[in-house]
Amino acid sequence: MNSPENSLSERTDHTATAANDVVALLAAELGDAVSTDAAALAAARADKSGHVAEGTPLAIVTARTIADVQATMRIAHRTGTPVVTRGAGTGLAGGAIADRGEIVLSTLAMNAILEISTDDEIAVVEPGIINADLNAVLATKGLWFAPDPASKAISTVGGNIATNAGGLLCAKYGVTREAVSGLTVVLADGSLLELGHRTVKGVTGLDFTALFIGSEGTLGVIVGATLRLRRLPTGPVATIGAYFASVEAAARAASVISSSGLRPAIMELVDHQAMDGINRYLGLEGRDGESYLLVQFDGSGAAVDSDAALAVIRSLGGEAELTEDREEAERLFRIRRSFHPAMETRGTVLIEDVCVPRSALPAMFQAISDIEVQFGVSIPTVAHAGDGNLHPNFVFDADPLAPGGVPENIWAAADELFLAALRLGGTLTGEHGVGMLKRRWLGHELGAPQLELQRQVKAVFDPQGLLNPGKVF
Amino acid sequence: MNSPENSLSERTDHTATAANDVVALLAAELGDAVSTDAAALAAARADKSGHVAEGTPLAIVTARTIADVQATMRIAHRTGTPVVTRGAGTGLAGGAIADRGEIVLSTLAMNAILEISTDDEIAVVEPGIINADLNAVLATKGLWFAPDPASKAISTVGGNIATNAGGLLCAKYGVTREAVSGLTVVLADGSLLELGHRTVKGVTGLDFTALFIGSEGTLGVIVGATLRLRRLPTGPVATIGAYFASVEAAARAASVISSSGLRPAIMELVDHQAMDGINRYLGLEGRDGESYLLVQFDGSGAAVDSDAALAVIRSLGGEAELTEDREEAERLFRIRRSFHPAMETRGTVLIEDVCVPRSALPAMFQAISDIEVQFGVSIPTVAHAGDGNLHPNFVFDADPLAPGGVPENIWAAADELFLAALRLGGTLTGEHGVGMLKRRWLGHELGAPQLELQRQVKAVFDPQGLLNPGKVF
Repeated sequence: MNSPENSLSERTDHTATAANDVVALLAAELGDAVSTDAAALAAARADKSGHVAEGTPLAIVTARTIADVQATMRIAHRTGTPVVTRGAGTGLAGGAIADRGEIVLSTLAMNAILEISTDDEIAVVEPGIINADLNAVLATKGLWFAPDPASKAISTVGGNIATNAGGLLCAKYGVTREAVSGLTVVLADGSLLELGHRTVKGVTGLDFTALFIGSEGTLGVIVGATLRLRRLPTGPVATIGAYFASVEAAARAASVISSSGLRPAIMELVDHQAMDGINRYLGLEGRDGESYLLVQFDGSGAAVDSDAALAVIRSLGGEAELTEDREEAERLFRIRRSFHPAMETRGTVLIEDVCVPRSALPAMFQAISDIEVQFGVSIPTVAHAGDGNLHPNFVFDADPLAPGGVPENIWAAADELFLAALRLGGTLTGEHGVGMLKRRWLGHELGAPQLELQRQVKAVFDPQGLLNPGKVF
Repeated sequence: MNSPENSLSERTDHTATAANDVVALLAAELGDAVSTDAAALAAARADKSGHVAEGTPLAIVTARTIADVQATMRIAHRTGTPVVTRGAGTGLAGGAIADRGEIVLSTLAMNAILEISTDDEIAVVEPGIINADLNAVLATKGLWFAPDPASKAISTVGGNIATNAGGLLCAKYGVTREAVSGLTVVLADGSLLELGHRTVKGVTGLDFTALFIGSEGTLGVIVGATLRLRRLPTGPVATIGAYFASVEAAARAASVISSSGLRPAIMELVDHQAMDGINRYLGLEGRDGESYLLVQFDGSGAAVDSDAALAVIRSLGGEAELTEDREEAERLFRIRRSFHPAMETRGTVLIEDVCVPRSALPAMFQAISDIEVQFGVSIPTVAHAGDGNLHPNFVFDADPLAPGGVPENIWAAADELFLAALRLGGTLTGEHGVGMLKRRWLGHELGAPQLELQRQVKAVFDPQGLLNPGKVF
């Protein structure tokens, strides 16, 4: 296997003497867009994955224009310097972590909305705009960018695209790929490319837009995007909060709701370990082993569909309430929203992300229970139940930011978790991406021949391997 | 510019003496799956585009298994023989036309449904299954493969995937890409690859599944597909048929329906030239210049939404009727369905396919009118109005199957039509593909640097250029 560690250190040795020159070249061309501030460089060594790079990057370029991005890439290309593109740094797989000898190219300040067309239901944006900020503007026009990662209040649309982000609404409203029709990208040599189209349909040539979505900064730098918007759903929203005696019962209810043809906008499952932590955090008296299912319907069929879902839930032993009142709904949501804060009070948290066929959800919960016993770890889990997408959380007592900070049994348990998901016909990552953290399992899922082809396609766009080295491939 | 014509003739010269050997190799390995029947070879020189290859292919392999496809590709690879993969041959862009020196690899007999999972809402199928045949089986389980090209009664799912087919329902239900989560493909060297996943979400590595969808047989041979199904919509379906005094008024009504947030399952616009032919064909007394808008709503909001659409239509001068009765709806549909038969009574028809941003639909109709005058041709047009996808039809008096059969002014008018679509921010092809017919305009839309990158990506999968040479690139 091609060792990226080796190629990284070779590259570092090669450019070590030239590091000051690279920073000088950047500064000469880009002025105060270039920073070597120690705190900023340190921050760029981490994201929200719990992983921290060993070394410190060369400099951060805060691009304000496409020309800034092109100038940075031209210097990188000329000097053979690796570049890590970074938005808000909220990734959970280490995809935007920068290491020794690398330029950090931040697109966070490129955050303008360039166009909103109500008639065509599209928006053209710069990559640094925060998902929730965009949606706040769109809402004033009755429009909506549907991709809604849980990080939407802090993550950028560019980052959402780079990871093909999912979220809570995917079963009904699709993932990011379905909401992007075109991209403007800067390639490794600094050249600019327009991909895709402004139209609803378009099949001219290979679908490079889809190829870039989820490519995690390895093919080019996303500097603009044409987004496919939806109308904000109107009318009352119906929300159900349901308690079940076990996670199996809750998973079964979710499965029957899906297979009966109902399509909730949101269907979140909170397992017993997670509920235990949430109840303690909120000071609620929960019952041993209880699990929670949150279901929400929107659109013109919301009332009818939520009644049907409620009947399913009750027939399977769920204690449920249904409301169309916004404040009541907020109370039902609060349990799910309290998951991450509750976990953080209990220790350090690694948020994992596997996806299995919906029918394998109960088997995956069983596998998680087995892994907890086998490795002596606690893995509270929430799931986007309509998608079969689980977020098992590893909670432990250690500082992950210290080198070697994540205990070995946690990595071993995570390893077993990924293999269990693959055995169930699932995938390593439903929505977070591969980044640095899942590279070693990539060949398990893709197979060696496909992985080799993926590397060759990457090399077409980035023959020198400058873009986000050590990530994904 | 790289000339595919040259490379094709070089290849032909090179392999001319070996042609008999290639057929012998195929026959030795594949037995009666190999045919050199003259009528079958002649049929493979054409599709439904009106274009016919000058030469005759070597042989047709009717693959029945993945192993047959692999054996064919291994022989092709060893002997440097080009291969044209072909399903039902219903394409409209010449993408499955085979020429001198080429092997035709038919996947039409690989038509099994390997699995249907109601719980996971997926089906695993072979590529040769006819779209409508698959849906007939799925309907017995309350399931549905949503992509619905107008050719669905005769086109294969493999062909739908190879062209990323659209259809009448895309604005609401998406194109083929949104309905495929995984592919099994045989590469140019005969090796087998599994792409994608069975799960709702999955972001492991580059999205090769999306790259293959719409690649028109240039990257590999699709030998299996994992399809994302939907539940068949239940409840009454509401259908509106509306007459307008002009195509502009009909287009405006379609635009207001979309921009008021309604999302019809179907919204078809039939322009005045098309209506003139349809009225004559059906023996109806139409009014001069009248155009027709067919709108259909399904799902639980159908009744409410169709009332709202009817109000829009009447406020804009449309004479409309709304029905939930199936037979009445069929009568309203009959006008749209009679378009192609009506055109065929008037001469030879070339069906074109451009897509513009929805807001540019009136401007595109204006451009079509101008082109009719400028080139002295008649271009009756239907449009999937919710998508901005127009099918201008060139109707003329000539046998297109005779070499040089399509008159020069028709090609000149088509040329102008494509450029007009691009000028309006549109695309060369909304759903039919590039094939042979639109190659010369490809660089206009993609630009030379992107076209060059697309060729390099193609070369990663097919370094010898064996797969569908002379198509797309």
